[in-house]
Amino acid sequence: MRVAVIGAGIVGLACAEELVRCGHDVRVFDPDPGGGATRAAAGMLAPAGEAWHGETDLLRLGVASARLWPEYAARLQAASGVDIDLRTAGTLLVGQDHDDLQQMRRTLEVLATQGIAFQELDRREARAHEPTLSRVAGATLLPEDHNVNPRLVAEALLCLLGDRVVRARATVLDGGVAFADGTEFGCDAVVVATGAEARSLVPQVRPVRGETIRLRGADRPSRVLRARVHGEPVYVVPRAGGEVVVGATEEEHASEPVATLGAVVRLLHAARTLVPGLESADVVEITARHRPGTPDNGPLLGVTDRPGAVPQLLAVGHYRGGVLLAPLTAQVIRAHVEDGEIPAVARPFAPSRFGPHQICTPADHRKDAMS
Amino acid sequence: MRVAVIGAGIVGLACAEELVRCGHDVRVFDPDPGGGATRAAAGMLAPAGEAWHGETDLLRLGVASARLWPEYAARLQAASGVDIDLRTAGTLLVGQDHDDLQQMRRTLEVLATQGIAFQELDRREARAHEPTLSRVAGATLLPEDHNVNPRLVAEALLCLLGDRVVRARATVLDGGVAFADGTEFGCDAVVVATGAEARSLVPQVRPVRGETIRLRGADRPSRVLRARVHGEPVYVVPRAGGEVVVGATEEEHASEPVATLGAVVRLLHAARTLVPGLESADVVEITARHRPGTPDNGPLLGVTDRPGAVPQLLAVGHYRGGVLLAPLTAQVIRAHVEDGEIPAVARPFAPSRFGPHQICTPADHRKDAMS
Repeated sequence: MRVAVIGAGIVGLACAEELVRCGHDVRVFDPDPGGGATRAAAGMLAPAGEAWHGETDLLRLGVASARLWPEYAARLQAASGVDIDLRTAGTLLVGQDHDDLQQMRRTLEVLATQGIAFQELDRREARAHEPTLSRVAGATLLPEDHNVNPRLVAEALLCLLGDRVVRARATVLDGGVAFADGTEFGCDAVVVATGAEARSLVPQVRPVRGETIRLRGADRPSRVLRARVHGEPVYVVPRAGGEVVVGATEEEHASEPVATLGAVVRLLHAARTLVPGLESADVVEITARHRPGTPDNGPLLGVTDRPGAVPQLLAVGHYRGGVLLAPLTAQVIRAHVEDGEIPAVARPFAPSRFGPHQICTPADHRKDAMS
Repeated sequence: MRVAVIGAGIVGLACAEELVRCGHDVRVFDPDPGGGATRAAAGMLAPAGEAWHGETDLLRLGVASARLWPEYAARLQAASGVDIDLRTAGTLLVGQDHDDLQQMRRTLEVLATQGIAFQELDRREARAHEPTLSRVAGATLLPEDHNVNPRLVAEALLCLLGDRVVRARATVLDGGVAFADGTEFGCDAVVVATGAEARSLVPQVRPVRGETIRLRGADRPSRVLRARVHGEPVYVVPRAGGEVVVGATEEEHASEPVATLGAVVRLLHAARTLVPGLESADVVEITARHRPGTPDNGPLLGVTDRPGAVPQLLAVGHYRGGVLLAPLTAQVIRAHVEDGEIPAVARPFAPSRFGPHQICTPADHRKDAMS
């Protein structure tokens, strides 16, 4: 089949690579491949750490994708020659004070009901596991929440896709996609993987600004820390080459995604309270991007109900989970392209759960503007 | 005369432009013109705000150069067409608490003995002058401490110098300068204006790291604020286009000039305590560079005592005052090139004050390494 993928973030690239690998003829269109939320993402493969009451379908989806990652990473690395820095030391969920610990235990309740492994640690045990920590109230080890470097994953996927990735902005058309210059690309299916930019097509997707800060330093933790520090959520992610990623804010607005002074101070202050040795770390980069949020925090995976000459498949709305969910999303989209079927674990995330007409066309926008 | 200037920071560029304007044949050599401390500098023309006990010669030098700036700025702008954003609203010296105010008054004592104008303001008057301030203990208006945008000054000077600026690293030679590829440039005088990099030539110059942060936001002060905020020195400099520069740390070490987490948090936290409206400002850029510090905080202006076929003139060690002192330094160097004379105000800053042999050659370095 001939497939057009719109959007070369980690989700679009993973879908494209899976389709190519299974013999399809694919083109990916993006004016700035890997330049959106993928560039800001910390790369936590952390379904347990993200678990929340009322989101068990999303937890199951995340666990299913997390289990694909080790093999996926190995395959990408072998095929592309790019080391994507998969780290399997687990994650430490940390409460700085007792209120923070209380909040952390609400996540543990969800994990217990779902049979997901975790190990609670007292203050002393927490520092034994992670000597860079300050005097924290307590922690929990999540042995199966790993992390990866999303920029390197994008690099590996771009390397495997080669000139199938075209630097151009494309819009959905009944029989394919169209470009700004009026030319068109006809195909058998269109995959929409435009992240937060999907809001112009899919009104349920809203932009949620996130800021991450890249540090470089010696005194850094040996595994991912997800913490609340006197009420402030913060994570500290170690990477190869002495890099540490600190994140992430969540701000709901549609203005340009730029880091604010207040957000930077809050994140860095929380990070150094948690890991005092970061005080002297170099500040290498501050990145702000829009995440694609949805009403129930779950992605939109599957075909739209919009009539058209070719199926329009959505792979959008991954919110905080784009990196984690990329390999599973790729399998779901490939299964649908080939069989018109969606694997069971992804069915709760059908676009139709938000009702009909979940995709707008330029014509709809014009209509709205006139009414 | 044919003159080689090594270093295209604001000092080297100003010297070169002055020499060109007076009919000399000049070349400036720098691998990255305008890319050193000039790039980080906030551009305060603030001799009064920098005044300190025991540094009255430096204060006089600064006042003399500050008085050149309005005409200098007008000339640069007219000749280059670049608006360098000279702002003459003065500076507010601010004490956040009463201890900070106490510290500020030590600067006022120096100004009083030197007959420099200032106007003390109580808490109410301070906020009347500058409504963006938080509840500060008090302030002092320094009506003659202005500011300019150093990147635009460098742009104007680079524009006026055109292809006289050569992107190459040059070293001092007895009869001129030499390049990495072994070629040489013969001339009648060499001006060394290499900022903190002068330490390899002039052992009295030491690198002092400084970090400045560029913000963009609406609620910003109308003039420069120089403050102590619960002991932390910070300045907030408004610029054209909504830009605000926050600075500056001072850290004494020779490692790579990169911003640290601790410095960024301290600066931004102090800035938002002083001006709460900056909380929502965008963080646009964090810049760290080395200032060229000297034992007495004054620059080295004039000829070295090193025997050589051509005079070697130093215009280095400007520490925190490179932008302020650039026009006067240019006049001093030009006067020396033309007449072998140094204007009276600059005589206390002769390189000879640090004793003989203040300039090393590659041969000296080799000797040191062997001894």
